[in-house]
Amino acid sequence: MQHVRSGAGATASSGLLARFAEVRRCSLQLVEGLSPEDCQVQSMADASPLKWHLGHTTWFFETFVLPALDPDFARFDARFAHLFNSYYNGVGTMHARPLRGLLTRPDLETVMSYRAHVDAAVERLCASSDPARWAELLELGLQHEQQHQELMLTDLLHAFSCNPMQPAYRSMPPATVADVPLHWRRVEAGLRMIGHAGDGFAFDNELPRHRVWLDAFEMASRPVTNAEYRAFIEDGGYRDPLLWLSAGWAQVQDEGWQRPMYWSEDNRHAFGLYGLQPLQPHAPVCHLSYYEADAYARWAGAGLPTEAQWEVAMAVHDADLAAAGQVWEWTSSAYAAYPGFRPAAGAIGEYNGKFMCGQYVLRGGSAATPPGHGRLTYRNFFPPSARWQFSGLRLVREL
Amino acid sequence: MQHVRSGAGATASSGLLARFAEVRRCSLQLVEGLSPEDCQVQSMADASPLKWHLGHTTWFFETFVLPALDPDFARFDARFAHLFNSYYNGVGTMHARPLRGLLTRPDLETVMSYRAHVDAAVERLCASSDPARWAELLELGLQHEQQHQELMLTDLLHAFSCNPMQPAYRSMPPATVADVPLHWRRVEAGLRMIGHAGDGFAFDNELPRHRVWLDAFEMASRPVTNAEYRAFIEDGGYRDPLLWLSAGWAQVQDEGWQRPMYWSEDNRHAFGLYGLQPLQPHAPVCHLSYYEADAYARWAGAGLPTEAQWEVAMAVHDADLAAAGQVWEWTSSAYAAYPGFRPAAGAIGEYNGKFMCGQYVLRGGSAATPPGHGRLTYRNFFPPSARWQFSGLRLVREL
Amino acid sequence: MQHVRSGAGATASSGLLARFAEVRRCSLQLVEGLSPEDCQVQSMADASPLKWHLGHTTWFFETFVLPALDPDFARFDARFAHLFNSYYNGVGTMHARPLRGLLTRPDLETVMSYRAHVDAAVERLCASSDPARWAELLELGLQHEQQHQELMLTDLLHAFSCNPMQPAYRSMPPATVADVPLHWRRVEAGLRMIGHAGDGFAFDNELPRHRVWLDAFEMASRPVTNAEYRAFIEDGGYRDPLLWLSAGWAQVQDEGWQRPMYWSEDNRHAFGLYGLQPLQPHAPVCHLSYYEADAYARWAGAGLPTEAQWEVAMAVHDADLAAAGQVWEWTSSAYAAYPGFRPAAGAIGEYNGKFMCGQYVLRGGSAATPPGHGRLTYRNFFPPSARWQFSGLRLVREL
Amino acid sequence: MQHVRSGAGATASSGLLARFAEVRRCSLQLVEGLSPEDCQVQSMADASPLKWHLGHTTWFFETFVLPALDPDFARFDARFAHLFNSYYNGVGTMHARPLRGLLTRPDLETVMSYRAHVDAAVERLCASSDPARWAELLELGLQHEQQHQELMLTDLLHAFSCNPMQPAYRSMPPATVADVPLHWRRVEAGLRMIGHAGDGFAFDNELPRHRVWLDAFEMASRPVTNAEYRAFIEDGGYRDPLLWLSAGWAQVQDEGWQRPMYWSEDNRHAFGLYGLQPLQPHAPVCHLSYYEADAYARWAGAGLPTEAQWEVAMAVHDADLAAAGQVWEWTSSAYAAYPGFRPAAGAIGEYNGKFMCGQYVLRGGSAATPPGHGRLTYRNFFPPSARWQFSGLRLVREL
Repeated sequence: MQHVRSGAGATASSGLLARFAEVRRCSLQLVEGLSPEDCQVQSMADASPLKWHLGHTTWFFETFVLPALDPDFARFDARFAHLFNSYYNGVGTMHARPLRGLLTRPDLETVMSYRAHVDAAVERLCASSDPARWAELLELGLQHEQQHQELMLTDLLHAFSCNPMQPAYRSMPPATVADVPLHWRRVEAGLRMIGHAGDGFAFDNELPRHRVWLDAFEMASRPVTNAEYRAFIEDGGYRDPLLWLSAGWAQVQDEGWQRPMYWSEDNRHAFGLYGLQPLQPHAPVCHLSYYEADAYARWAGAGLPTEAQWEVAMAVHDADLAAAGQVWEWTSSAYAAYPGFRPAAGAIGEYNGKFMCGQYVLRGGSAATPPGHGRLTYRNFFPPSARWQFSGLRLVREL
Repeated sequence: MQHVRSGAGATASSGLLARFAEVRRCSLQLVEGLSPEDCQVQSMADASPLKWHLGHTTWFFETFVLPALDPDFARFDARFAHLFNSYYNGVGTMHARPLRGLLTRPDLETVMSYRAHVDAAVERLCASSDPARWAELLELGLQHEQQHQELMLTDLLHAFSCNPMQPAYRSMPPATVADVPLHWRRVEAGLRMIGHAGDGFAFDNELPRHRVWLDAFEMASRPVTNAEYRAFIEDGGYRDPLLWLSAGWAQVQDEGWQRPMYWSEDNRHAFGLYGLQPLQPHAPVCHLSYYEADAYARWAGAGLPTEAQWEVAMAVHDADLAAAGQVWEWTSSAYAAYPGFRPAAGAIGEYNGKFMCGQYVLRGGSAATPPGHGRLTYRNFFPPSARWQFSGLRLVREL
Repeated sequence: MQHVRSGAGATASSGLLARFAEVRRCSLQLVEGLSPEDCQVQSMADASPLKWHLGHTTWFFETFVLPALDPDFARFDARFAHLFNSYYNGVGTMHARPLRGLLTRPDLETVMSYRAHVDAAVERLCASSDPARWAELLELGLQHEQQHQELMLTDLLHAFSCNPMQPAYRSMPPATVADVPLHWRRVEAGLRMIGHAGDGFAFDNELPRHRVWLDAFEMASRPVTNAEYRAFIEDGGYRDPLLWLSAGWAQVQDEGWQRPMYWSEDNRHAFGLYGLQPLQPHAPVCHLSYYEADAYARWAGAGLPTEAQWEVAMAVHDADLAAAGQVWEWTSSAYAAYPGFRPAAGAIGEYNGKFMCGQYVLRGGSAATPPGHGRLTYRNFFPPSARWQFSGLRLVREL
Repeated sequence: MQHVRSGAGATASSGLLARFAEVRRCSLQLVEGLSPEDCQVQSMADASPLKWHLGHTTWFFETFVLPALDPDFARFDARFAHLFNSYYNGVGTMHARPLRGLLTRPDLETVMSYRAHVDAAVERLCASSDPARWAELLELGLQHEQQHQELMLTDLLHAFSCNPMQPAYRSMPPATVADVPLHWRRVEAGLRMIGHAGDGFAFDNELPRHRVWLDAFEMASRPVTNAEYRAFIEDGGYRDPLLWLSAGWAQVQDEGWQRPMYWSEDNRHAFGLYGLQPLQPHAPVCHLSYYEADAYARWAGAGLPTEAQWEVAMAVHDADLAAAGQVWEWTSSAYAAYPGFRPAAGAIGEYNGKFMCGQYVLRGGSAATPPGHGRLTYRNFFPPSARWQFSGLRLVREL
């Protein structure tokens, strides 16, 4: 996931520094109970080591916030500028992404020192500077770190899934999810507005707010469940090419897909952050690729919502995201610029627009999304083959 | 390119049979002067041998038209049902696409007999049947064959480009293209309609005609030229990552792209159907990937039009496509279903929707498009990395 | 297969020119009944198009023989120096091997003219020159062409095997092979000589003749048969990792090998130059990789002979190769230089030694080897994974 | 590297147990000063994490020694049987080699407990059992562990080389190597014996001792040095295809080789266990592939010794390996069974013979080889492309 700042205004500076402390602490909480080895491993090119996430989010503040406050600020270690740069060509070179797991040095302890060092500098420099100089960038850095907090969980889960010992990250089993009947929520045709508005934070890809025409449709009141998805499997969904996009069918065959990622062969259990657990029939189905979401929708005689349909319907019926938020929901919208999109200025602006190709938008949020991080206009995005995110779907019907 | 029939009405049946003869003849004209070897070769997985194109377009009539007229119709060779099926899971198995070039049998002469056999059957059966039973399907088959006629040229050019002898397909050099100044054509904001309307033929992906909201914009009166694109190269366009989509930059580096496909290292010549020729500075730049088109537009301080912008602007200013038609023009629109899209019923319907993933729409038409085949609502589509098509770009500016 | 000349003396010059005509004619006979398409196709990187074989063998005379006789000799087409060079860095650049199948130009007819042109020049210049200047090189060219004659058949068979139509190259079915009981032929321990001796032709890799010490052993009187090999399959030979070399077992799993190449799933038929035919139980098993030959031998409680064992045992018992010659027989000897090996001088000398890595020696000859081409000291060689050659095995037991 | 026991007799049992404690302790010494992260990482498929080496060598005793002494012996953790099996199909399944670096659990601390647990059991059970039941297997386990001790260093060096921070494993710089003039040591032609003899330990691949005929030759008194190899580079050695094996030249081009692995671009420094250090001109050149060793030898007008030449020459001139032992020396011998080779019985016997394909023998030993581990008959082996071992070469000349 990539991201960039909005033009939105800053919150009160003292509150923001408290929030800084809180968000930074949350990242550390995520690695509690994990070994240095757990934080070192990179199980595929698309994932990153937890240690790298901890370093990169720190690098972000060191690179984009501190120089604005103190031009003479000395980096903790000059070599980290390269090691922890993700993809920002505008600020220098970077270590190749698939090789992040090879960086045994700096070790976890050193990265923790790096974090503490940068945290102290941020707090010291912000406290003595005009918030107008740093509030927006600091907020962006926090939003950025929260995105990585979710990635830390998805990447750790993937790494653990590669271990035949099937380690559990956390021991508390999730509560039972009740059966919630589905109903269809109608939205009438009309010119609508989507995209971010108001003073709150938003990434640049949520802007500008703009008009879209929508024909009448109705959207499901909740995501598709495990039980519903299992019916698709049992009906031969993974064996019928007519249900699939051409690229999806190729992937099904090449990789032998027969069920969502992390499901056991009995279709009754799944591996997750709590280890191997029985599937809850009424919980949202999770760890689907776009291809699977799309095939399921076709099988169900429905479709995936466009991101405009999703945003408008949720705004009308669920503005608090109460019914969303368990899984990211694939939309049928390819990730693209909104009309009039302008990347942020400077190096920061490099980093949202350049990913607007080959990906689909997901909306909502997941159980792994930090509380308060999501919003109705939030645009998450991944390639259609991605399954290691907490991704599911919700149906739509055109009228 | 894939395609499917419209629900449009049939033209007069006698005229249609004359058109059948004409279109079928055009395919044969395309291979005049070529050797059996030239028609055999497959130079990459995305391309097909010309002999295969000749067989597949015939298979289309044999599979979708003849059975509707004579349930007892016997295939020319039962094995061809498999060999010449492209990707229609609904009608049986198919030979793997990347291995089409290995089919030395049937030889070219046999494929010619196959064509003659099916042509005779079509003409005989149509002449004695109610056009209501065949006119629509026959028209679809002809549109399908015309699409393949362009592909025959793009695939042949690719194959010839792999030969150090640089063979020329045709000897007549193209006429000099005059310098046409560019001007910007403004379109005001408003609710617009796009998509096919009326009785004429259209593929199902052009339907239904539907509303879109467009903010004000202006579009260039002609495509970008070779001279303009050369300025981008000379300005270091292929060396600046900030101009490129992330996936595009990766491709530039992995494949060492430094100029459009088929250009010589001097940036003054290009290989084409007439062999190696001097580049005409005022001709539209051609054989660009989407990535290159997008990077050029960013460098030029402009953008690529969405397909809705393109269609509306051309409808207003150029309804006869007079200024288009030299190169297919990449749009910024990912290839997706129109709201309310319904694939055609039956096996035929399998084949447009399933490609709506991972591709971008191109509009207009090229010098290799058969006359009369294009229209304003036509949606061509290819992956963003494709360069072997006759693909260029036109700029747009939001206002 | 690669090759280089011996230092052996020339045969009588008039006889040699007659032989030249005969060998060259044999290559043309091999393509009789084949279409230009059949001669164009390259079905894998290790194989070459028949047309390319016809051109390359001609290039060999044009490059190594004609310049020695007429320094002013003009090439038929200067571009062929590049197109038909196989791997001789010493004489210039070469077209990439895996792309040979893309060369639709020159077409087959032009290659035939090329052959006729070079043939005439060879005959004219040799007739008027001292044989000391050309006899050895001419003989080398003929031996080279004979090697390619066998490759033409193996490569064609592979190409035809990729076609679901299963074309037959020749129609006359092979005669029934009688059941020949196996007996073991003992060779006592001692210092032996192997390698070429005498005036006849040999490639440089057969030289120098040299001493080897051999412990006592006994070698089978005939190759392993289809029926014997089938018993290995039915005993689970392809499912037991303990029978296989580590690299062989990896290949079995990666490629799903369950039987020799070209066998049908019923283990009762095989595809060959006569199309799909019933397997003859008493014919030598054929189209085995080294891995399969080695696993079979282990399963049978025996081994593969070293090339020294093979050569010595055959010299004692079968000097006329009467019991050999149906299939090339894998030996356990990695292809390496004989002690004191000296590559031939000049460009010709580049080409045997450089392949002495990653390959195993095969001995004997096959039904596809041109009559008179083999000898006891002949060293054929292929990588251990190669299966498209006419390759089988013969057992040995140490005593 | 793979290995198997000899049929050699056991040393005195009490001394053997003391040696057990010593060898096991050495493995722990190797990871002193390394972090859990350093021990976790796997930088390529051919290398293994240090933690895995520590576990696997323990698994070897637990799998092959303890069950022979106590049939009821319970494994430390049943899952380790799978995790730490390298390639022994005969004793069960195994974790895929390229995925060893993903096993963050068990963590390093647990693996240390595993070692202590197995060590205690070995010492307890051996002390109370007849050495005839365990001495040979225990010795094999120790030899096996010593092999892995060298691999721990080569694998760590490779991992560190992937880190732009260029960490140093040890800080003490190596002593300066003096210039030792090369002389040639002659060996006369004759029947010789090679292979292991006597009571000491040997792996099964060193047996049986057997006769070979050798023509006269002379071998260099020391390996090729950095300065000598640099002359090859400066003479264009990496740019002249005529110096290379065909497979080697392909690798040079595909991977852009221009110097030995770990050398800096200035050809004056190299990365090693002491970090980046100036190259010592008179130290043996190291980290060469077989291809490079072979090309150098050809350039130098000499050759690589066969393993028989090497063993015989060293036995005559250097029986104490005084002049060897700095780098493993590539021989020209493909790794193959000695005449009469019999793999050890049982599961242990699976593991030497099956690697006798696609590899070359190296002789001698390196600075990373544990003292006392090498011997004249020792056969190390790696694929010709391997460069991460401490591998160099010594020249030979045939007379």
